[in-house]
Amino acid sequence: MARSKVYVASVGLTKVGDQWGKSLLDLAVEAARGAMKGAPRVKPQQVIVGNMFSAVGASQEHLGALVASALGLAGTPAFKVESACSSGGSAFHVAYSLVGAGALDSALVVGVEKMRDLEPEEVSEALAMAESAEYTQFVGATFAALNGLLARYYMEQYDVSRDELSAIPVIDHANAVAAEHAQFRRAITPEVVNRSAMVADPLRLFDCAPVGDGSAAVLLVGEAAASGAKGRLAEVLGGRVATGEFSVYERDDMLDFAATREAFKGAMAQAGLSPKKLRFAEIHDAFSVVGALALEAMGFSKRGRGAKDASDGMYRAGSELPINTFGGLKARGHPVGATGVYQVAEAYLQVTGQAGKNQVPGADYGVAHNIGGVDTTSVVHVLGRGA
Amino acid sequence: MARSKVYVASVGLTKVGDQWGKSLLDLAVEAARGAMKGAPRVKPQQVIVGNMFSAVGASQEHLGALVASALGLAGTPAFKVESACSSGGSAFHVAYSLVGAGALDSALVVGVEKMRDLEPEEVSEALAMAESAEYTQFVGATFAALNGLLARYYMEQYDVSRDELSAIPVIDHANAVAAEHAQFRRAITPEVVNRSAMVADPLRLFDCAPVGDGSAAVLLVGEAAASGAKGRLAEVLGGRVATGEFSVYERDDMLDFAATREAFKGAMAQAGLSPKKLRFAEIHDAFSVVGALALEAMGFSKRGRGAKDASDGMYRAGSELPINTFGGLKARGHPVGATGVYQVAEAYLQVTGQAGKNQVPGADYGVAHNIGGVDTTSVVHVLGRGA
Repeated sequence: MARSKVYVASVGLTKVGDQWGKSLLDLAVEAARGAMKGAPRVKPQQVIVGNMFSAVGASQEHLGALVASALGLAGTPAFKVESACSSGGSAFHVAYSLVGAGALDSALVVGVEKMRDLEPEEVSEALAMAESAEYTQFVGATFAALNGLLARYYMEQYDVSRDELSAIPVIDHANAVAAEHAQFRRAITPEVVNRSAMVADPLRLFDCAPVGDGSAAVLLVGEAAASGAKGRLAEVLGGRVATGEFSVYERDDMLDFAATREAFKGAMAQAGLSPKKLRFAEIHDAFSVVGALALEAMGFSKRGRGAKDASDGMYRAGSELPINTFGGLKARGHPVGATGVYQVAEAYLQVTGQAGKNQVPGADYGVAHNIGGVDTTSVVHVLGRGA
Repeated sequence: MARSKVYVASVGLTKVGDQWGKSLLDLAVEAARGAMKGAPRVKPQQVIVGNMFSAVGASQEHLGALVASALGLAGTPAFKVESACSSGGSAFHVAYSLVGAGALDSALVVGVEKMRDLEPEEVSEALAMAESAEYTQFVGATFAALNGLLARYYMEQYDVSRDELSAIPVIDHANAVAAEHAQFRRAITPEVVNRSAMVADPLRLFDCAPVGDGSAAVLLVGEAAASGAKGRLAEVLGGRVATGEFSVYERDDMLDFAATREAFKGAMAQAGLSPKKLRFAEIHDAFSVVGALALEAMGFSKRGRGAKDASDGMYRAGSELPINTFGGLKARGHPVGATGVYQVAEAYLQVTGQAGKNQVPGADYGVAHNIGGVDTTSVVHVLGRGA
């Protein structure tokens, strides 16, 4: 399909967390200006905003034109892309597809979410919109509750212990210590997870990604515009979006993340890359169990081994395939519609050698994996060191 | 840019209006199935949903995967595109761009909105999200209020009478009489507009598009998939999205719809077509004044003449350039995120000669024009009779 190579030319990130003093638009503009400053000669031909629930979080829609106009880019085509917690990944994918196909030579993708202005129960209601209003919401199942049931089933089915389930959050927190944009920069132990408050049995507070505000932006360029980019380039080697049967309880095998499997397979095939070549993976671990199942669906761990492998030392910094090198959803934070763009931006920093204290040595290739719902939409992109 | 010709192969429409018995998803599925039935051998490679405020209207996000899964298309990439009232047009534009660039060979675009489950003041709040939360909403300006101010200015500036302003709603209602999917199928006179309740001085009830539920779907195909389409094809000859300075009061000339001007110019240039070739136009007239300014921005009327020309008999059925051939936003209805897809579907029916009693004779070329905000985002597509 690709008629043009596609590069990430620059990125911009705000800190994730409590951003009481900044509006949704302030955050988006801060991240976008950061990305544009990194490639001042590139004028974005399109602005695509990834966001899930600005309507309930900030009484604001029409983010595409709002952000474009605030950036002085009035005139430029702009719109918002939404696919629940994978909105950022989907927004990036639309831009990647358009640049790759030659329809555009440059595009600015801005992921943004403002969650902290909402009360906790409002956040629960907003996140539940990733699931069916007529069924899942109707019976009162929150998003955490669904994932709690999944975690219970996973632990029973594969004899996964509490400490094993805690391994991915522990890795995330360890990686976030040096990550300046991360929400929680404090290392934890499995005991901390065990002692934390119960959210949805067996999931405890530290199994769950936190609520935070944040925005990430990436500037994509095709081959023609790449010459005007002054910074280091990361090439987007492949990408794929896949959907699954909508709700997890509709599936024959609830522990098989089929959408992630398909998206990963498709993205790697497009990249023409063996998974062995990957040196890091930014995975979507909104809940510890989700991270484990994602690692299994992508084939890094065998079925039932995701949490166990993490507990055995795989996936931590210095291992063969470190995950969530800036803290992942649990510790970098999960401003939902922005998360997929944070992941791509972090992958850019890794493959271009700009990850500072979080740098993975020899990070030639890496993958960014973003989920909406309980693996209902899965978005995978493969990045490599640019030419 | 275009590497493949792009065709609309089939369309599906629900009636616009009170759809108390059907959910948001029911409506989307009904329209989508209608479109898919028209081209049973075409499997959509992507599902793109245009919608503005399902979050507040139906407590539902993640519409892409929700609709794809309900259609039996789980696996297929899917997401939602939003740009306020031009969400449907933007969703169509993304699909058109991807098929035209050769990234996809087929795509299903579904516009859907459920407005009638909301109380009137909730609808006002939802529509106001098209405007800035920090400025326009903060000072309490509703969307109707902004357009009322614009209408007053327009009437003062160009000496436009009340009856002249009523001309476009009158045309819309006349055209909707024979349109089965239209919300209000009753002809009106300027007196009816004059007698109707004041909404935002000088705009009265019949100056304003009604609140309604509805869904429209179109199936797009590239050259390869076109051979599998059994029905008549309409070719999408050109399309463009443009944005303007975000809020109307930020602009040097508030009566110049610059985004519409740019989008129309760009779409016609891509189509390589003189505006004289157009035989009909589906224009965005959420308010009578908006329709008038749109006709001026596209150059069909001179500055200040949009409403006057309509009053003089231009634009009505049987004229050289009939507008809103199935009733437009005022009478077909304006389920906001769906409207842009209704317009394209109606243009398809016209150029393929399937418009029944609403058929424009010799409708070889037509244009669909969709606005988000007060001409903040403008989306124009040109359709022609397929090969």
